[in-house]
Amino acid sequence: MQVLVPYTGRDPKSRLSALLSTPERRQFSLAMLRDVVEAVREAGGTPELLAPDPVVTADDPVANGGSADVLDGVSETVDDRPLTVAVNAALDRLDRGQASELAVVMADLALATPTALRRLFAGGGDVAIAPGRGGGTNALVIRDPAFSVDYHGASVRDHREIAATAGLSADVVDSMRLATDVDEPTDLVEVLLHGRGRAREWLVDAGFEIDADDDGRVGITRS
Amino acid sequence: MQVLVPYTGRDPKSRLSALLSTPERRQFSLAMLRDVVEAVREAGGTPELLAPDPVVTADDPVANGGSADVLDGVSETVDDRPLTVAVNAALDRLDRGQASELAVVMADLALATPTALRRLFAGGGDVAIAPGRGGGTNALVIRDPAFSVDYHGASVRDHREIAATAGLSADVVDSMRLATDVDEPTDLVEVLLHGRGRAREWLVDAGFEIDADDDGRVGITRS
Repeated sequence: MQVLVPYTGRDPKSRLSALLSTPERRQFSLAMLRDVVEAVREAGGTPELLAPDPVVTADDPVANGGSADVLDGVSETVDDRPLTVAVNAALDRLDRGQASELAVVMADLALATPTALRRLFAGGGDVAIAPGRGGGTNALVIRDPAFSVDYHGASVRDHREIAATAGLSADVVDSMRLATDVDEPTDLVEVLLHGRGRAREWLVDAGFEIDADDDGRVGITRS
Repeated sequence: MQVLVPYTGRDPKSRLSALLSTPERRQFSLAMLRDVVEAVREAGGTPELLAPDPVVTADDPVANGGSADVLDGVSETVDDRPLTVAVNAALDRLDRGQASELAVVMADLALATPTALRRLFAGGGDVAIAPGRGGGTNALVIRDPAFSVDYHGASVRDHREIAATAGLSADVVDSMRLATDVDEPTDLVEVLLHGRGRAREWLVDAGFEIDADDDGRVGITRS
């Protein structure tokens, strides 16, 4: 299955700017992207970046990340229109019969594992939806050209309605790993506790650790 | 399977006090408890309340909630010690051979469905752990008396370590529905978007709705 992975290097993870500098946010976002690309591949998918600027081919030591990088050989579609427009343009492949199914997996799902993605890919509905925390849509599989995306607002609700209006069946994938997109400081707690890849390692190297002193949900500190 | 459902009616859901009055927090917490008890039963479990004060038998119109209530006939263990102590005391049944497995499912899992709970109950490990948002442990299945709970701090990490130290296998259940305990205002968004029972209905009746105007994660408003 072709798996689109939307990513932007333009002011990435801006809601983490209280904790991370601009170069750090770029490094961290690329660590998450690499984790997602690797998990997609291990789950049997063919990852394909969808980005407003070239990522893989950029002459950028941060982006290139050394030899034998997981991003080597990953194809890219460069489209600098808003996310919804760019994804819907890519979904035209279903209309044109160039693919029978297509997935969209966000680049900031730092907890995504091959097991969680296999559950997403294996569903049989016309559409499979993995909700994100706070009303978002973190991952989709689309098997019918009548479906289109709309990432603005409470998109998970909108995507269920778009499917229903088009008479399509929609499976909802119940996964904490796929529900956890990393946008806000509290999300870093989840990466430290449950992550297994580069993103967690990056945070640990940057000095972040769990602060479990508080009652209620735990926080993070940076040394 | 016997399924302990810890609940407290003492200042319940205190972190929602900016949005809900004290009587409202009590009503809402009981709506969630009823949803959880019903889901446990539909998943094949035998729910049993674990509470510092009697819930079911209380002469309290809010608690009793009318005729043919889902809480009718549910057994209760009244134990006013801290949660960790009370749960470990209940786990003594495994030691005494009175049960071969025991589950603990928190009363504020307003998104829990029978399907999600069946996945929890079906795991084969000595321990099955459903992590909660922010480092908590929202649900457990325990099949070995060598395990004990510790709900303070980053309990999901502690529970993995307690299992490992005792040489027990631990399955982690990847479920957004079980990961969503309802403690904070942003959690109400999840109940409105993904809930299917009394808790969602209570919020709708109380005038809460999704506020999707913002970019990023959506919020709630109250009319």
